[in-house]
Amino acid sequence: MTERLTIPEEHVDRRTKGVWWPDGSVTLDEFAQQAGNLFTGPFTWPLMVLREPELTRNIGALSAFTEQHGLAFAPHGKTSMAPALIQRQLDAGAWGVTAATANQVLAYRSFGVRRIVLANELLETRALAWIAAELNRDPGFEFLFYADSAEGVAAAASVADPDGRPLRVLVERGVPGGRTGCRDRAGVLAVADAVAAAPGLELAGVAGYEGPVTGGADAVRAFLRDLRTDAAEIARAHGLERPVLSVGGSAWFDLVAEEFGGARDVWPLLRSGAYVAHDDGLYRRTTPYRRLDEGPGALAGALELWAQITSTPEDGSAIAGLGRREANYDAGFPVPRTVRRPDGSRHPAEGLEIEALNDHHAYLRVPPGLELHPGDLVSFGISHPCTAFDRWSVIPVVDAEDTVVEAVATYF
Amino acid sequence: MTERLTIPEEHVDRRTKGVWWPDGSVTLDEFAQQAGNLFTGPFTWPLMVLREPELTRNIGALSAFTEQHGLAFAPHGKTSMAPALIQRQLDAGAWGVTAATANQVLAYRSFGVRRIVLANELLETRALAWIAAELNRDPGFEFLFYADSAEGVAAAASVADPDGRPLRVLVERGVPGGRTGCRDRAGVLAVADAVAAAPGLELAGVAGYEGPVTGGADAVRAFLRDLRTDAAEIARAHGLERPVLSVGGSAWFDLVAEEFGGARDVWPLLRSGAYVAHDDGLYRRTTPYRRLDEGPGALAGALELWAQITSTPEDGSAIAGLGRREANYDAGFPVPRTVRRPDGSRHPAEGLEIEALNDHHAYLRVPPGLELHPGDLVSFGISHPCTAFDRWSVIPVVDAEDTVVEAVATYF
Repeated sequence: MTERLTIPEEHVDRRTKGVWWPDGSVTLDEFAQQAGNLFTGPFTWPLMVLREPELTRNIGALSAFTEQHGLAFAPHGKTSMAPALIQRQLDAGAWGVTAATANQVLAYRSFGVRRIVLANELLETRALAWIAAELNRDPGFEFLFYADSAEGVAAAASVADPDGRPLRVLVERGVPGGRTGCRDRAGVLAVADAVAAAPGLELAGVAGYEGPVTGGADAVRAFLRDLRTDAAEIARAHGLERPVLSVGGSAWFDLVAEEFGGARDVWPLLRSGAYVAHDDGLYRRTTPYRRLDEGPGALAGALELWAQITSTPEDGSAIAGLGRREANYDAGFPVPRTVRRPDGSRHPAEGLEIEALNDHHAYLRVPPGLELHPGDLVSFGISHPCTAFDRWSVIPVVDAEDTVVEAVATYF
Repeated sequence: MTERLTIPEEHVDRRTKGVWWPDGSVTLDEFAQQAGNLFTGPFTWPLMVLREPELTRNIGALSAFTEQHGLAFAPHGKTSMAPALIQRQLDAGAWGVTAATANQVLAYRSFGVRRIVLANELLETRALAWIAAELNRDPGFEFLFYADSAEGVAAAASVADPDGRPLRVLVERGVPGGRTGCRDRAGVLAVADAVAAAPGLELAGVAGYEGPVTGGADAVRAFLRDLRTDAAEIARAHGLERPVLSVGGSAWFDLVAEEFGGARDVWPLLRSGAYVAHDDGLYRRTTPYRRLDEGPGALAGALELWAQITSTPEDGSAIAGLGRREANYDAGFPVPRTVRRPDGSRHPAEGLEIEALNDHHAYLRVPPGLELHPGDLVSFGISHPCTAFDRWSVIPVVDAEDTVVEAVATYF
């Protein structure tokens, strides 16, 4: 049975961004029941919402994909840090949840997540010691993390419990000029040897992240095959029957499925996270569904920002109340979708563009033929999900008619 | 007497970023009493701290500056959104607090802030109506906001209470190619006329933001003088005795003091906010103290990030556990300060540079002669305060010996 997470009870009050709730405080559930429609309910601009149909589509798509291709799935929870969304991902069949930091591991454990992959090196002995103890406290807790150096192995070994359940290590491979991870097979094997020799540690397999690989599909495929050979060599050297082989990202999971789908020599574990919200920018351009039969519409941008035009001081430009505090811009600015007038009429935002963001202002270039006035609303898709969620501690979920059906809290 | 804000009681628990608090939950005060030293206490990396001596220096500097020059001061609270820091600014003599959004106004009111300048247009009738009612409910509440359009005036007039305390409006002037604000005197006077003619609104003065002015000191001075002439003309046209003249920013307050310090024809109100934390980047380069007798050391970067080196996979580079989730980069990457080895020894981080950030990773270029190893810690100053605070909901305050003396909560 799927685990039931403990989703903390949070409240909406005067301090909740995007919400106009001047009197007292209500729980998120009460809020969702009372909020009604996005344009008549207790909201203030700017606001970010999750669109329920698109969210459901995205979670369903990767669930079907990983099941169809025989890949275990630990979606990266750092994307949303929202236990209500992680619950949906687990309900859809995810094996576990991926974390990026020790702190996220601790937060997941507070939600009751059973299986966690820390897709990162971990050098903090305080955290490692706590995790080792937690493994002994809770036989249902499963944990994997990375090492790519002698220091990483030594830090874990220094606090591991040789008489308890072991800390299970994935040796990370990286690419030259890339991020973390050993750069060659000799490096992978040396770290694997060190793990295997350390009491209290268990060599569980290998991991990598194909995101920083340059050179397109062929280079990604070569990286994936290198990882599989790594896995085979450490399996042979250390007597592993079916080592974990974990890769992640939201741009190449089609190749992961081609290379590892249904593998018996390795246990392939996918860690994609951004798919849960998808976007109108980076992953719209790079999703593997461009190459798959389902087509790029298999995923849809589920996050939507709404902002009000506050000033139209010059022809051809407008200022919206939306800034870096509310919108991310690491992979391009938010992408205008629709203009909504005070009378409720809607117009396509074709040609409208954000040119710059301040903390709380967006500079819009307005194309000829589109008139914007102070008081108009503009909706935006986002350019990249992973840096959008972290600007909002409460996110209303709306249905296709813009009626609030839920409100989710994030923990960044 | 200075107002005492209501500082909400918040807690530290498993979900608190930067803190390793696995068992139960404690209030921020209890946490601060128990936390001890940054390097032996209950922390996990990365972590952002406020340094107490620098924080005190910064708040003292602008307090002295505004008092010495006869400027009223409403520091921009959007910088920190931390009531504990806003309390310090009020204790140091600030007249009020500046906000950027209606939502921030509501949050400030929940903290009990008495005088608020919304340095922005406000078109939301729900918020305007609530503010009008709040003015009638609380005779001690003072509120100023901007208009730069007929739509802005009409929105306020549509919900103003002609029989109650008026909504007080500052007409905003902007610069061509800039942000919000009327582009010329005719525009300013037209909006002023509309405000003066609207029952329930009161024309209070003019405002502008010299930040987007290009062309250096002469252009800023010309902008400030335009504003003063605006103020004189609306004062004459509408019989105002001493209109408010509000300007803001942290790059030109020396010119503001030269132009408006001790003015009797206008009531000069400064809105600088970034000074509270200052930085090692944008404002280190642009602070007015470079031109003032006190010298640039009058302000000091009070925010400091600490991150751990997690991987050193290639010569000349290193990966630290610090990313876009924890560090801002809108005005440059965080600036390395010090390397701290596991044995407690410290080395200057001279020549070390961040080249890129992912969500939870920093790519460091390591200069020849500096060796970094997994497990080392690196401290960073920040490049711009306004986008640094919003990544942390709890920020420990440490003294010169890195001992925790307080923990402050932010509300973004």
